[in-house]
Amino acid sequence: MKRIIPLVLLLIFLKPDDIRAQKPSKVRPNVILVMADDLGWGDVGFNGNPQIKTPELDKMAANSLQFTRFYAGAPVCSPTRGSCLTGRNPERYGIFFANVGHIKPQETTLAEVLKANGYATGHFGKWHLGTLSKTVRDGHRGGKANDEFSPPWENGFETCFSTEQAVPTWDPMKDQMVKTHYWTGPDRFAEDNLEGDDSRIIMDRALPFIGQSVQKKKPFLAVIWFHTPHSPVVAGPNYRAMYPGLDDNHQHYYGCITAMDEQIGRLRRELRKLGVANNTLILFASDNGPAGEGGGIDQHPGKRQQGTAGIFRGRKGSLYEGGIRVPALLEWPGRIKTHRKVSVPVTTSDYFPTILSLLDYSVPGNPRPMDGINVLPLLFTDTAQRPKPIGFKSYKQRAYTDNQFKIYSADDGIHYELYDLLNDPSELQDISEAHPMVLASMKTALDDWLSSCQKSEKGEDY
Amino acid sequence: MKRIIPLVLLLIFLKPDDIRAQKPSKVRPNVILVMADDLGWGDVGFNGNPQIKTPELDKMAANSLQFTRFYAGAPVCSPTRGSCLTGRNPERYGIFFANVGHIKPQETTLAEVLKANGYATGHFGKWHLGTLSKTVRDGHRGGKANDEFSPPWENGFETCFSTEQAVPTWDPMKDQMVKTHYWTGPDRFAEDNLEGDDSRIIMDRALPFIGQSVQKKKPFLAVIWFHTPHSPVVAGPNYRAMYPGLDDNHQHYYGCITAMDEQIGRLRRELRKLGVANNTLILFASDNGPAGEGGGIDQHPGKRQQGTAGIFRGRKGSLYEGGIRVPALLEWPGRIKTHRKVSVPVTTSDYFPTILSLLDYSVPGNPRPMDGINVLPLLFTDTAQRPKPIGFKSYKQRAYTDNQFKIYSADDGIHYELYDLLNDPSELQDISEAHPMVLASMKTALDDWLSSCQKSEKGEDY
Repeated sequence: MKRIIPLVLLLIFLKPDDIRAQKPSKVRPNVILVMADDLGWGDVGFNGNPQIKTPELDKMAANSLQFTRFYAGAPVCSPTRGSCLTGRNPERYGIFFANVGHIKPQETTLAEVLKANGYATGHFGKWHLGTLSKTVRDGHRGGKANDEFSPPWENGFETCFSTEQAVPTWDPMKDQMVKTHYWTGPDRFAEDNLEGDDSRIIMDRALPFIGQSVQKKKPFLAVIWFHTPHSPVVAGPNYRAMYPGLDDNHQHYYGCITAMDEQIGRLRRELRKLGVANNTLILFASDNGPAGEGGGIDQHPGKRQQGTAGIFRGRKGSLYEGGIRVPALLEWPGRIKTHRKVSVPVTTSDYFPTILSLLDYSVPGNPRPMDGINVLPLLFTDTAQRPKPIGFKSYKQRAYTDNQFKIYSADDGIHYELYDLLNDPSELQDISEAHPMVLASMKTALDDWLSSCQKSEKGEDY
Repeated sequence: MKRIIPLVLLLIFLKPDDIRAQKPSKVRPNVILVMADDLGWGDVGFNGNPQIKTPELDKMAANSLQFTRFYAGAPVCSPTRGSCLTGRNPERYGIFFANVGHIKPQETTLAEVLKANGYATGHFGKWHLGTLSKTVRDGHRGGKANDEFSPPWENGFETCFSTEQAVPTWDPMKDQMVKTHYWTGPDRFAEDNLEGDDSRIIMDRALPFIGQSVQKKKPFLAVIWFHTPHSPVVAGPNYRAMYPGLDDNHQHYYGCITAMDEQIGRLRRELRKLGVANNTLILFASDNGPAGEGGGIDQHPGKRQQGTAGIFRGRKGSLYEGGIRVPALLEWPGRIKTHRKVSVPVTTSDYFPTILSLLDYSVPGNPRPMDGINVLPLLFTDTAQRPKPIGFKSYKQRAYTDNQFKIYSADDGIHYELYDLLNDPSELQDISEAHPMVLASMKTALDDWLSSCQKSEKGEDY
């Protein structure tokens, strides 16, 4: 604890919340949050993709809880990522879209709580929750005179290898649209081992962090946020060659996913080699649905954006299921002995309260609205019902879903559609006229929830 | 062999082909052909269905070759089933649609060849390849003065528990649209153990046959053709209860699939209990895509027809992928040690030549056109290419597919569309104008193939 206490003390002064070490938890599993970038629900073998090769994820799935109704907190990148770390909805902490806003210092992150309790903490890959340099022009917003500076090392991560934003998924430092570095700390960025597959480059940094934590007998939190398969989509020649007969666009999209898959296999093997697999939980998910042509929120595939949301309607950017329902797994060999499909709705905001419950930690500081819930009690019975609906907002879209129904508005809540997701998972049939009472009560609940978010966003929680 | 030889001798007189015992094969695995009825590509967990519970098929898939491009021989029931047993396309043996035609005595079936070589042979479930009684009104066509009599026991099956056509998937003898019996031989039908789940009723007959074959140390061929989830779609209360919150239609459709899944688990456990699992190959597939509302070839889901073809276009009755690309597995624990996805095109006509090659048997009698091929050499390398395209015809539709491309006509070959199935598996983009040469050469090949089929159908092979 010698090295930890001063950091904790420092945090008390920096942070309004009282983030101190709590009573030692009985279990202290290692936690690895893995996130793909723009990977569609149907882009993995374990969700039935007939072509994309993801043998390592499929093996992991066979050993995991496999979520069939897992929601990214938002239909685009930055907002979702914040929800993973804070347990709160992006509407609450004010990151409304990609490349805007930042994690405010008053927010409490999973990394801060775990670090204060003796965990080694590391972030590897895409950050997207604020700028990483006040001086160097970097990413969309870095180095500019604005208030968006909020790097991972000011949000609880001790070890960092982090970009502000997307980079090419092969040779990530070359042919960038906007110059972006891999930052390792204040005013420091990586300068070697930056060639080839970006997922491998990220894992090359994550594995030594994990190895050192194990050596020091410290539990660890590793947040591994791949850039794959976000634009610029580039696969190396070996990965493209795995898809003979496919055109360039498909080879690049499918190939970079297979390259990422390979690194997930490498990670899982390393945990076994280190003897810590049983006590490590890995949460795998995507940050939103598959991107449309060009890499953004266009609702049609095209060029190198060849992802699929399977049977679900919509893509990245949409609050229909295809934009937010993503592939997701929870592997924890010491606790989860057999594969199970979990159909209860779960979302990225649940990470924070679930992991804290598991560790028997409470959220430090003054009570503040939390959108996620501890989902552990829901994961092991078929009849589980989520006690709290999940709300979404993105530009003019709003959506709200409970165990069965979902309301959706494309025009800031003027008109609503109602879907029965159990009987109509593809959202083909708007049943709002047949069920006006269901619609009305969900609208009221959504309005209440949005009001609460707006209060938080105005700073009332701090 | 005491009981076998007279049957073989008898066959020589009955059949024009010279179906005799051949030199003993080095390997004599047991063969189980399992077929679901109208199960869509996306109706199983292993192909990514987010809701339908098929844990037993998923377990089987994890231990199998899992085909991602497996084609039913036709987009409807009877024609496909004939192709499983003869290795020939339905256009060749003259079963052009469901409930028409029959397996002609001149055709050589897999059951006949295996029986002549010492296999015990049994058929359990839906037959659909001819009538089973000349005297009793049964099914659509039984008991009428027509030439469609062609029961399983005249096509190589010694043990039978077979219906001419569809029955309800729960309490199969009740509430039938058309009276249909489970025939066990000439003028004999089953009268007990016919209540409850139809898949269980079928397995209750298949397992004793398998057990007795093992006891007699005879290899066996068991053809288990479930009626599930074909209309009338009915699930028992226990299976419906597995889908709380779903409406009646979904509960029945999903529930009867889960009931069938349970029987597949029972079958696999029984093989292990009997100690023959390693030496038994199980081929699982569906006979066509998911039915449309009402159970037929309507191209929209509705009522109790709630199946999905996943990302594929079309349903039962269509020669777009959704009508013919079906879930399929090959499990053979003694030979296939690890799960593999097989992306090379394979079809039900391949069963017959593949199994014969495996046994080192040649097709008996005079050489005749065979549409299927031995696919064994294609199953274990990623770069395998199918040497022979696959042709389809159904009413006015025609289609022809090689490893990459597919042509499709809805109007008897007047107009054609061309799809690149590797780059556009959902058949969204007709590229015939951009690739006139590909289209022209595939049209010619399809025309040649159809001419050959027509000659066969006129009897030129016999």
